Amino acid sequence: MAGKLYGVGLGPGDPELMTLKAHRLISTARVVAYPALAGSDSFARAIAAAAIPEGAREIVMDVPMTVERGPAQAAYDAGAKRIAEALEAGEDVICLCEGDPFFYGSFMYLYARLADRFEVEVVPGVTSITACAGRAGLPLAARNERLTVLPGPLPEAELRDRIEGAESVVVMKVGRHLAKIRGVIDGLGLSDRAVYVERASLPGERICPLSEAPEKAPYFSMILLTKGADPWL
Amino acid sequence: MAGKLYGVGLGPGDPELMTLKAHRLISTARVVAYPALAGSDSFARAIAAAAIPEGAREIVMDVPMTVERGPAQAAYDAGAKRIAEALEAGEDVICLCEGDPFFYGSFMYLYARLADRFEVEVVPGVTSITACAGRAGLPLAARNERLTVLPGPLPEAELRDRIEGAESVVVMKVGRHLAKIRGVIDGLGLSDRAVYVERASLPGERICPLSEAPEKAPYFSMILLTKGADPWL
Repeated sequence: MAGKLYGVGLGPGDPELMTLKAHRLISTARVVAYPALAGSDSFARAIAAAAIPEGAREIVMDVPMTVERGPAQAAYDAGAKRIAEALEAGEDVICLCEGDPFFYGSFMYLYARLADRFEVEVVPGVTSITACAGRAGLPLAARNERLTVLPGPLPEAELRDRIEGAESVVVMKVGRHLAKIRGVIDGLGLSDRAVYVERASLPGERICPLSEAPEKAPYFSMILLTKGADPWL
Repeated sequence: MAGKLYGVGLGPGDPELMTLKAHRLISTARVVAYPALAGSDSFARAIAAAAIPEGAREIVMDVPMTVERGPAQAAYDAGAKRIAEALEAGEDVICLCEGDPFFYGSFMYLYARLADRFEVEVVPGVTSITACAGRAGLPLAARNERLTVLPGPLPEAELRDRIEGAESVVVMKVGRHLAKIRGVIDGLGLSDRAVYVERASLPGERICPLSEAPEKAPYFSMILLTKGADPWL
């Protein structure tokens, strides 16, 4: 009988923000799989490290960070093939995912390749957007408010259109797009509502008004545009 | 010295989707607080029940479900007063919140009333939106895609405008607004992409195409409009 594939969300980075279910699955795993981006250490593996049993087999997917999608697709093809072999041999595979597997997560590439042939269970995790909001003390959305999530790499004009018509906004994957995003938010006169968050829940966490954000932002950084707590009284 | 207030997200309902941190805080709590809506049992308390220590003191906030906001505000005023008394007496208070405290959560009403006077920590939780997506096998957003979260009670015209210009959409708090929302989605020709989810991760979970959704939906139900897994290959 084939094994089962688990896509396990690990939360935003603090290992204590992993769910009980994620912790149980990882700490009893015989095979774990995870991506490592562009030759660096795997962030997913780092979050889960203390729970991974000694002797568990590890399937590492080295995913290049290129603008073209071909090289990354090839890496997920190769990873899916190795995972499929373990599943066919009857082993369950625990795939480690930062945040939530289905929220801008790499697990969906494996899901698209394997879900038609194997049993798959997705274990949701805490996303970076609520972790950042909590750390910044900024409620994301209440009552009948709308929330818009936008990736930072979107073109400037589209970011402007989307932010202009929105209520609460989260801009993800800020990284090298910080100057462009800041220009859009300044242009809309919304800078006093904008907060920059980097490494939420991790050592080196940084939370500040967007106007004081660093020139260079890491990939895992975020901008929150919310009304704050007062309107909800 | 005053105690500390914790707003603790419990996730979508399955107690195993609580974080390790939430579990630690609850299982060592001396005072827990939670809302109970409209005279019914507290859903938050039910999720956390197995972890609450015997002998912990419980502050229950009976929140009426009225269209006017006055009665609910009065309930949160009274709850905040009791929580403040415990904090002033030097006790930490663990406030239990379904899902995530800052994502359509009731904790923000307490936050708005108490954060200026007491130390508050928000512990994020798994939101219902990623839990529903995982259970339905529908990735919410990948790469540079946008995600829009809309509450079902919004007026029909606004729902139509917001859904029309969106990519992935989550409609929360469907409940008695199901017929209206279904009409909007049908009118936009998007019904074949729409999935209805109720009680994700709980006994009695129901996932089906929107066209097969029941006439009556509970408050905690959701509609997902996504592209599914294929476009991400």
